[in-house]
Amino acid sequence: VMALKARVLYDFHSENPGEISISENEEVTLFSEEELDGWLEGENSRGEAGLFPASYVEVLRDHITSSHNNGLPSSKALTPSHASYASSDAAAQRGVGGSDDDWDDDWDDSSPATDAPQGVGSRPPLYPVTSSLPARRDSGQQQHHAKGSATVGRNLNRFSTFVKSGGEAFLLGEASAFVKDGDRICVVMGKHGPEWQEDPYPFTCTIDDPTKQTKFKGMKSYMSYGLTPTHTNVQVNRRYKHFDWLYGRLVERFPVISVPHLPEKQATGRFEEDFISKRRKGLIWWMNHMSSHPVLARCDVFQHFLNCGADEKAWKQGKRKAEKDELVGANFFLTISTPSVPLDLQEVESKIEGFKAFTKRMDENSVVVNTTINEFARKQATGFKKEYQKVGQSFKLLAQAFELDQQQYSAGLNKAISETGEAYEAIGEYFAEQPRQDLDPISDLLDLYRGHLANFPDIIHVQKGALTKVKDCPKQEGELHERCNIISCATLAEIQHFHRTRVRDFRLQMQHHLRQQIGFFEKITARLQDALQRYDDNQ
Amino acid sequence: VMALKARVLYDFHSENPGEISISENEEVTLFSEEELDGWLEGENSRGEAGLFPASYVEVLRDHITSSHNNGLPSSKALTPSHASYASSDAAAQRGVGGSDDDWDDDWDDSSPATDAPQGVGSRPPLYPVTSSLPARRDSGQQQHHAKGSATVGRNLNRFSTFVKSGGEAFLLGEASAFVKDGDRICVVMGKHGPEWQEDPYPFTCTIDDPTKQTKFKGMKSYMSYGLTPTHTNVQVNRRYKHFDWLYGRLVERFPVISVPHLPEKQATGRFEEDFISKRRKGLIWWMNHMSSHPVLARCDVFQHFLNCGADEKAWKQGKRKAEKDELVGANFFLTISTPSVPLDLQEVESKIEGFKAFTKRMDENSVVVNTTINEFARKQATGFKKEYQKVGQSFKLLAQAFELDQQQYSAGLNKAISETGEAYEAIGEYFAEQPRQDLDPISDLLDLYRGHLANFPDIIHVQKGALTKVKDCPKQEGELHERCNIISCATLAEIQHFHRTRVRDFRLQMQHHLRQQIGFFEKITARLQDALQRYDDNQ
Repeated sequence: VMALKARVLYDFHSENPGEISISENEEVTLFSEEELDGWLEGENSRGEAGLFPASYVEVLRDHITSSHNNGLPSSKALTPSHASYASSDAAAQRGVGGSDDDWDDDWDDSSPATDAPQGVGSRPPLYPVTSSLPARRDSGQQQHHAKGSATVGRNLNRFSTFVKSGGEAFLLGEASAFVKDGDRICVVMGKHGPEWQEDPYPFTCTIDDPTKQTKFKGMKSYMSYGLTPTHTNVQVNRRYKHFDWLYGRLVERFPVISVPHLPEKQATGRFEEDFISKRRKGLIWWMNHMSSHPVLARCDVFQHFLNCGADEKAWKQGKRKAEKDELVGANFFLTISTPSVPLDLQEVESKIEGFKAFTKRMDENSVVVNTTINEFARKQATGFKKEYQKVGQSFKLLAQAFELDQQQYSAGLNKAISETGEAYEAIGEYFAEQPRQDLDPISDLLDLYRGHLANFPDIIHVQKGALTKVKDCPKQEGELHERCNIISCATLAEIQHFHRTRVRDFRLQMQHHLRQQIGFFEKITARLQDALQRYDDNQ
Repeated sequence: VMALKARVLYDFHSENPGEISISENEEVTLFSEEELDGWLEGENSRGEAGLFPASYVEVLRDHITSSHNNGLPSSKALTPSHASYASSDAAAQRGVGGSDDDWDDDWDDSSPATDAPQGVGSRPPLYPVTSSLPARRDSGQQQHHAKGSATVGRNLNRFSTFVKSGGEAFLLGEASAFVKDGDRICVVMGKHGPEWQEDPYPFTCTIDDPTKQTKFKGMKSYMSYGLTPTHTNVQVNRRYKHFDWLYGRLVERFPVISVPHLPEKQATGRFEEDFISKRRKGLIWWMNHMSSHPVLARCDVFQHFLNCGADEKAWKQGKRKAEKDELVGANFFLTISTPSVPLDLQEVESKIEGFKAFTKRMDENSVVVNTTINEFARKQATGFKKEYQKVGQSFKLLAQAFELDQQQYSAGLNKAISETGEAYEAIGEYFAEQPRQDLDPISDLLDLYRGHLANFPDIIHVQKGALTKVKDCPKQEGELHERCNIISCATLAEIQHFHRTRVRDFRLQMQHHLRQQIGFFEKITARLQDALQRYDDNQ
């Protein structure tokens, strides 16, 4: 067998057992051309054998012939992935374009290949903090466009979201698909304007602590989460890559619905407790939002994700069906039923403008809140803790000095002062531990909502594109107008849903925060009362 | 009338109404050579008329003839006064040496002349923080020595405390005075060793808020404190200088008793609220300690100070009597009655050694505690407050963003979040205010006790000097031994008293501290409960 060789493109420093370090321009021997989870196995020039990221090396075509790599770093390496959302879309693309077998190729969270060129040495922030609203749907929605309509290009900007989302194609009457009753999505007129018809069978979902699974003789591992929806009460096991696949489907399926972002990927330290707990919390938030959205919660692909058990065949069948769904992009709008009276365009425009101003301010101020509470959490874990502990230690020093006095009547006081010192040390710990309970959840919520805020510019853009087209059209009545009304109804229903969940979520979270804070200060008070008691005990 | 002239020795910048600024080498016109409270009145070269410190100018002898100043800065200017205790002793000396008329010369706290050359621009610390134990009695005890015995010099170190306190003279049998029964001070054998006989008529004393009094047509003012002892329930008015005079008397009277230090003088800003409140608190601590000391509380000069009313003549009579008291220094020891069984010298020595180690450690650790809690207080007033207020402000920003959403169902939440923000701002204030209630008192107590700790080396030195003399003496029985026993009994009684009040004071203060802290955290909890309530109000 001829040895496979590869040239190293970037330095890679092994961080986990099983990995080997490789240096730029080094030549390495490959044991196989087959990637495992984005990794290749081989031997470096120092004779060390192990795994390294596939995207870090270029297979040398002089030695072998294969269509695999074309002498370039794998395309994955070119995907910017410090923004988790972009890489999620990239994953979605791969899921759509590939065969079912791709599923087993593990294009999931565990692949450092995706993150490699930027990721080495500098761990990406747990949540990306952006003060602008990035247009994150680009890569995913090129897909939609291709599916939604074969006729494009009427809009001068062929890359505008309006075009890519299928909004333009729908408006111009080019969408066509068969819509079953079960696929129909109703917008109804509520007290505060158009809204999604409520889910008659609401449910929630719990996520158990993930368990670590291994494969490839233990060389690679992944986390498996147990999901239990309340309407079936049957647990299913899902990996992050399944969430990621679902996310891709939903983004493609619902152009004017804000699909919550998944907690971000992280190349290294995936099994560190903090990361696991943070991801699990993120997935809980995600699932909560999903299951409380009248449209997302009911859709087939989400139900498949929630209900399909361990039957591999059934899973692949549902997966294939979802990936072949016709009602994506432009065709999505065909599924929408609107209230009988069309909306006033002027009023819609003003509402949309108001919402735009709102999202901008909420995004700006969320950044301030998030920065402030994260800093507050940091201060509690450092400065506050340190101050209380220093006071505690100094009281203990005082008690120690007093112990040099052998008078019997001093012993009780010395002990009491020493225990006051211990109380202060404990309070320092309380301060350090507390932010996890009451600041982190607010931070998580803000992150979730900043994800939504990042989705809305594109959603608004679709509606605005439709509105502009209608205004340009001399004929004020007719089908164009009607289709614009459909887009507007869906957009306003989604905005209404956003506000409702926002009010619900922030109310609950602020209440949770305050209850936790009250409990925290009560705990401190109790500790001090204990300490005070000691002075009476020993009078 | 010939104009009096003076040359300015140091720059002086007026800081209060009525004062004028003068510059080095400037020639000023004096309105009178008579000092008021250490100040002179005159006109500077810019034509401004007012007061300036007498010690800052040199009266020009070319113009007048007077024995007043001898062309040098007044001797007061040479007294180092950044250590308050030294200047208190200096004041005591002046009080003793001068006539009754000195009383009206106002050698009191209000004289900036004392502090001037060092004091301008740099306010001395409210409490001097020293990590060593300064021998503070020096200047005061030279006085004692002079009174105690005319025969000195047997000890090679003629400036040792043993000599100066009169301890040596007493030991060598050179003290002699008539001791009335009322002057007798009893040391009795208690459960834990020798102790002062308890005061059969214990009392306490309250100090009212001081009132500002003025004199010299309002140009100069001073604070007057209303003291009310519980055993007479009659209020008397005393100034700081009266306390200072009393302090001088007591230090002179009781060589082996630790007279608590007065709160320090402060040249500028005497009428600022903080200073007045701090001095009042300091005087309360001082009075509490005085009135709970079996020997100090009962002594004539303290009773005169507490009981003499507004009758100027009676006051001067008592003052003169106290200043002529024979039972000071060496003669003090003549007043001591000891238990019938003499102490074991070995045991005394070991107790004294133990106490020495104790005071050293307590002093060191008190410095740490004091530094730590002062820093903690500072952090609460700055960092803690700022953090809570920043969180409060960021919540208010979030509420403001939410207000851009005109949905009716959002209004209640917005208001509630805004009020949570206000709660956090209030909590920031609570943190800033709290140290005054529960850290400052501990700091004050530590300052008081560090004053005692600074007294003890001299007290111990007297006892050790006596012990050494006895050991050197071949005759183990007899009068020398008996007199050494008297000194030892008094010293151990004072140490016992120190420990008893220490245990009492620290127990009370730690309890007070913890009760305050508990109240503080309960207040925070209540504020947060209020804030939480708002989320229900507006559901």
